[in-house]
Amino acid sequence: MSGNSFGTFFRITSFGESHGPALGVVIDGCPAGLELDLEFIGKELARRRPGQSTHVSQRAESEQFEVLSGVFEGVTTGAPLTVIVRNEDARSKDYEPLKSLFRPGHADFSMQAKYGWRDYRGGGRSSARETVSRVIAGAVAKQLLGYLGVVIQGGLVQLGRVSTAARDWPQVELNSLRVPDESKVPEMLAELELARKERDSVGGLVEVQAIGLPAGWGEPVFEKLDALIAQAMLSLPAAKGVEVGAGFSAVAMRGSQSNDTLTPQGFNSNNHGGVLGGISTGAPVVVRVAFKPSSSIPQTLSTITAEMQATSVTTLGRHDPCVAIRAVPVVEAMLALVLVDLWFQDSAAVKVRESFFPRQTLKFETKPL
Amino acid sequence: MSGNSFGTFFRITSFGESHGPALGVVIDGCPAGLELDLEFIGKELARRRPGQSTHVSQRAESEQFEVLSGVFEGVTTGAPLTVIVRNEDARSKDYEPLKSLFRPGHADFSMQAKYGWRDYRGGGRSSARETVSRVIAGAVAKQLLGYLGVVIQGGLVQLGRVSTAARDWPQVELNSLRVPDESKVPEMLAELELARKERDSVGGLVEVQAIGLPAGWGEPVFEKLDALIAQAMLSLPAAKGVEVGAGFSAVAMRGSQSNDTLTPQGFNSNNHGGVLGGISTGAPVVVRVAFKPSSSIPQTLSTITAEMQATSVTTLGRHDPCVAIRAVPVVEAMLALVLVDLWFQDSAAVKVRESFFPRQTLKFETKPL
Amino acid sequence: MSGNSFGTFFRITSFGESHGPALGVVIDGCPAGLELDLEFIGKELARRRPGQSTHVSQRAESEQFEVLSGVFEGVTTGAPLTVIVRNEDARSKDYEPLKSLFRPGHADFSMQAKYGWRDYRGGGRSSARETVSRVIAGAVAKQLLGYLGVVIQGGLVQLGRVSTAARDWPQVELNSLRVPDESKVPEMLAELELARKERDSVGGLVEVQAIGLPAGWGEPVFEKLDALIAQAMLSLPAAKGVEVGAGFSAVAMRGSQSNDTLTPQGFNSNNHGGVLGGISTGAPVVVRVAFKPSSSIPQTLSTITAEMQATSVTTLGRHDPCVAIRAVPVVEAMLALVLVDLWFQDSAAVKVRESFFPRQTLKFETKPL
Amino acid sequence: MSGNSFGTFFRITSFGESHGPALGVVIDGCPAGLELDLEFIGKELARRRPGQSTHVSQRAESEQFEVLSGVFEGVTTGAPLTVIVRNEDARSKDYEPLKSLFRPGHADFSMQAKYGWRDYRGGGRSSARETVSRVIAGAVAKQLLGYLGVVIQGGLVQLGRVSTAARDWPQVELNSLRVPDESKVPEMLAELELARKERDSVGGLVEVQAIGLPAGWGEPVFEKLDALIAQAMLSLPAAKGVEVGAGFSAVAMRGSQSNDTLTPQGFNSNNHGGVLGGISTGAPVVVRVAFKPSSSIPQTLSTITAEMQATSVTTLGRHDPCVAIRAVPVVEAMLALVLVDLWFQDSAAVKVRESFFPRQTLKFETKPL
Repeated sequence: MSGNSFGTFFRITSFGESHGPALGVVIDGCPAGLELDLEFIGKELARRRPGQSTHVSQRAESEQFEVLSGVFEGVTTGAPLTVIVRNEDARSKDYEPLKSLFRPGHADFSMQAKYGWRDYRGGGRSSARETVSRVIAGAVAKQLLGYLGVVIQGGLVQLGRVSTAARDWPQVELNSLRVPDESKVPEMLAELELARKERDSVGGLVEVQAIGLPAGWGEPVFEKLDALIAQAMLSLPAAKGVEVGAGFSAVAMRGSQSNDTLTPQGFNSNNHGGVLGGISTGAPVVVRVAFKPSSSIPQTLSTITAEMQATSVTTLGRHDPCVAIRAVPVVEAMLALVLVDLWFQDSAAVKVRESFFPRQTLKFETKPL
Repeated sequence: MSGNSFGTFFRITSFGESHGPALGVVIDGCPAGLELDLEFIGKELARRRPGQSTHVSQRAESEQFEVLSGVFEGVTTGAPLTVIVRNEDARSKDYEPLKSLFRPGHADFSMQAKYGWRDYRGGGRSSARETVSRVIAGAVAKQLLGYLGVVIQGGLVQLGRVSTAARDWPQVELNSLRVPDESKVPEMLAELELARKERDSVGGLVEVQAIGLPAGWGEPVFEKLDALIAQAMLSLPAAKGVEVGAGFSAVAMRGSQSNDTLTPQGFNSNNHGGVLGGISTGAPVVVRVAFKPSSSIPQTLSTITAEMQATSVTTLGRHDPCVAIRAVPVVEAMLALVLVDLWFQDSAAVKVRESFFPRQTLKFETKPL
Repeated sequence: MSGNSFGTFFRITSFGESHGPALGVVIDGCPAGLELDLEFIGKELARRRPGQSTHVSQRAESEQFEVLSGVFEGVTTGAPLTVIVRNEDARSKDYEPLKSLFRPGHADFSMQAKYGWRDYRGGGRSSARETVSRVIAGAVAKQLLGYLGVVIQGGLVQLGRVSTAARDWPQVELNSLRVPDESKVPEMLAELELARKERDSVGGLVEVQAIGLPAGWGEPVFEKLDALIAQAMLSLPAAKGVEVGAGFSAVAMRGSQSNDTLTPQGFNSNNHGGVLGGISTGAPVVVRVAFKPSSSIPQTLSTITAEMQATSVTTLGRHDPCVAIRAVPVVEAMLALVLVDLWFQDSAAVKVRESFFPRQTLKFETKPL
Repeated sequence: MSGNSFGTFFRITSFGESHGPALGVVIDGCPAGLELDLEFIGKELARRRPGQSTHVSQRAESEQFEVLSGVFEGVTTGAPLTVIVRNEDARSKDYEPLKSLFRPGHADFSMQAKYGWRDYRGGGRSSARETVSRVIAGAVAKQLLGYLGVVIQGGLVQLGRVSTAARDWPQVELNSLRVPDESKVPEMLAELELARKERDSVGGLVEVQAIGLPAGWGEPVFEKLDALIAQAMLSLPAAKGVEVGAGFSAVAMRGSQSNDTLTPQGFNSNNHGGVLGGISTGAPVVVRVAFKPSSSIPQTLSTITAEMQATSVTTLGRHDPCVAIRAVPVVEAMLALVLVDLWFQDSAAVKVRESFFPRQTLKFETKPL
């Protein structure tokens, strides 16, 4: 297996290259009887689409999708659900000069080492364009989770050196950077503009939360909810770190501070980020993902050729100065995929168990947090 | 599947509870013909053993292990390798008072929510004692990796508010805190002592690196080397975050700074932490894992009972004031398990491919970094 | 993975060699809250135990088992359930002469080819003794299935050249050959005795059925109920064929004959053996497994040494003249394992779907068949 | 997972319905650097295509395929290889009358029971048309196996009541029934014609063999070579039984007869069908699969409606009177898929082991058999 599938019960298989005929995804395990909201898939694709603002790549892709299987009369049949998006605006000849050298910060060197062969056009399979498949699958997962009342919301909480502590989520879709804090947008735009002017790129931090999920999802050892989220997030292009709840700040904490005490109304704080012992507590699941600056910058950098000779490269073309902006819907999609899979996992155990040992539901007097 | 297995080719299945008869691991996929170094397994177990210094839990476990299967005349047969360790010093009655309430920071609440039933003795399956199984398996994985010259080394680089930038790895086994910087040990011990005096616990940051692995390990999409490492690390008890290479610090970087340029001698820097596009580059793999403070502190905290009524709890007993210290060998084990599995994965593809398309090896003039 | 695990949700991992310290099984996915009937495990082990009659191997194994994990106060916790049986009467020196040659009909040659190394004592991992692990796991699976009213029953329906068309199931546990037809027992015993007198062995055919399972289990493509049963059965030592319902006899049938017509009371016949399109129909699942004669016979047969030189071998020792007799409980166990896993699979989909699309239950006016 | 994937290393995911927009397959794990022979894929598709002779379904499908991903400049890249075939001649309105009733012998009843919903057009996902995906993937697998010299050949050895003992393999592609015995073709055609005249269908037996594979493939317990073959074959529509080597005839054999003795030149016989203890011996792998008569016959049969009321049905339309004829290339494809996957599995273990324990190759003086 070369790892193009994710999930066990709601299992997606992603395929397609940046400059190949099409990208797509097969979802195996979507239950029958779901009236698929195609418009919602289109809306989610639009959120990650290049060209939607001046801050992102200007590649012009309409992201028209076609459902190849799994739906009959608008309703899922339980058969594998396959959706494809054809590439329209690939400019492969932009990449000709990169054919025999390795761009710093990109997967060029490691891909060549692995396969002894490389689709150099736009990064091939390593392109962030692959995330189209994830967003499609995530849109289906979100729809399912909606029936349980689980809502997933992400936003950009740091761009370069500018961060925000506010989490005014309704703001996210109202500004072009997807920041949950309107007041910081101008400063972030300035940081972005400064980088672009200096022919450079900047990193970003995305936070995502899921609210409304019940306690009990996740498995206590290797398939902890947070462990699966960590794999999901670091499987994203340019991601370099992931943390849950208090995350890295917990290192400098005392136990008396990091322990979230409980009352009949719920947890008094959420340093645990909705997960204890790898299992959801019902408190909001809170995750942050660190994205490095885009590796494609129009500066001349030293590198080597495929023959291991010194050379240099300047990456021109249509690139995102901060990949984290368009990563927001992708991060949401990955969280949705992890959660929906654990919902199935939990359902299997619970339903079998019901035959001999009915589950006791632990319910706080009011909603947690 | 409830997630007690890890890996695909070198697949381990962990079992056992903190206060049950035994802990153990089945390794499925260890190749035949390996002269198993049992002493090394013992040595690795000793590194995570409680009671080895005054800074860790005083539970007295000899960690004697028994090989139940997979070895004949000292050599592995290719059959599943099973090793168990019997629990000797479990004091289950210490836990009687905790039977019907949920300790803050622990998995008590979420386990009860999941299973409707709980082995309250020492956390049952959620106990950090489960990591005995991981260390045994990791010791076998390390032995295999040794044949390729891959070396894994971890250490504690921050304890509470005291951190170090030094990486003097040979120091690690020479001080009781496993810090790669002798000069910081007194300050860290003071931080630990202060916390203990204040009936509290502290967090810690563990860094681990793997050197000597070839370029080409890891799969480019969901099974990225760093994604699998992230799952592995966040599957550890008390882990709240993981980062690779520059990690979270990449957010505030510029692309011109974070891109590691190449020369015929190797990479000029290692912000990428040995992984580009999810695939190893041959540069050292560098990972940091954030551990929260131990949840078990001898302070009275508010919580609720299994009937959702308000109460309070004081956790007495034999606990680690900083779980990150004993986590060092466990973090190393998890990295070894990820790497050995990807070695098999890579070997499968390469060996089949050799029949029609011999691999070109990309080799720097001198060792990278 | 070297394939010592079976199942996805109720996933068992088998370990141990015929002449190693112990055999055992880890069950990952047994739900919490099950009061484990240990006596029933013992009873099932006794059914496959050697030495229970004069027709089977005289190896004296008490098959005492020990539960190492997963049970607390007699009830499963949801943690991996591990059970081991120590080998007591292994006579490894019987096998010294076989060390450097390959017994015809055994796995000696292929194991040596695969691993370049071989545990020659009693076949090592290839021994039918490995099925102890399966019977233990099957006993737990049967217990779970019992809550749904699913009953599994097997029997020997052919021994050498003597077969029976009768299916008087209650007879099975009343005769030493496990034949569902008392009247044929003397003839079969004569066939067995004749073979033994001629220093030979005979094959056998085992039929197993499961009744009481609902319609809807199994997946329509690669994980068809009958496909999974086929893998399960051909994973048994000495099994050479498997068929479902009409099986091979369907080849010479006409469609008008093999099609099982339906009435509101159920199917009019069961050529389909309880499975259509890979999915259970609610009719009895009927499976037959062909076992070859035991390969261990006290005759001198030509063979080769590990150095590929001609030699001959005479297998003495304590062997079953007809392995199919003791295979009955093992075949039942494998069917139970397949069914319980599909129950979980089905439960996952159904329970998630309930949130938006309640299942319609297809129910015949009276029980099918 | 709902089981639309097969294999571990060379993992295929099949999608598409009989009357949906398209059928297709994603192959994850095809190594990079393979010059894909597209013509061969087309040739294999042509072998299973309807309408190729008067003995098979007259549905007119050109089976034009499109490669959506995984190939760059005619060579595989290591990325998922996706191929689709659009449906052209689906006559969905033929199926309108079948919408609310269950055809005997078909998956209609069990699919409805499982999903509470059904794509009634041509059986939807349960249609034998799904095997298009398998044939495409099999064509790639065969190409890979070709580099090792592994050749796979199947043929029809029984049609209804007419069988042949001859295995004149070159004949297979020379007659319209794919029988390895020219002399029996007229008799089989007569049997087929008789059935058709009587508005009926007949069963068939397909034999397939693989020659040239090395000893050592397959895993000794649950993932035995023959166990995986059994799953593969019984995952085919209309398959009711599978046997390896002597198969069911071994039941009536004596051990002295079924044991294949060895000489330095190879095995003296092949009752074991190329597999001992689940592992290949290097002798030809020989497998037979029993197919029931086509369930679609133009006779009036009693059945029930979705509301469980008595009714009757007459299946008109374009159907195969003997599905086993077109099953020959599909059976070959499934064997190829099992073998290629085990080749990867074996390669992983062998290549890792080479670092410390070089494999000894067991080689007969001349080719086995």
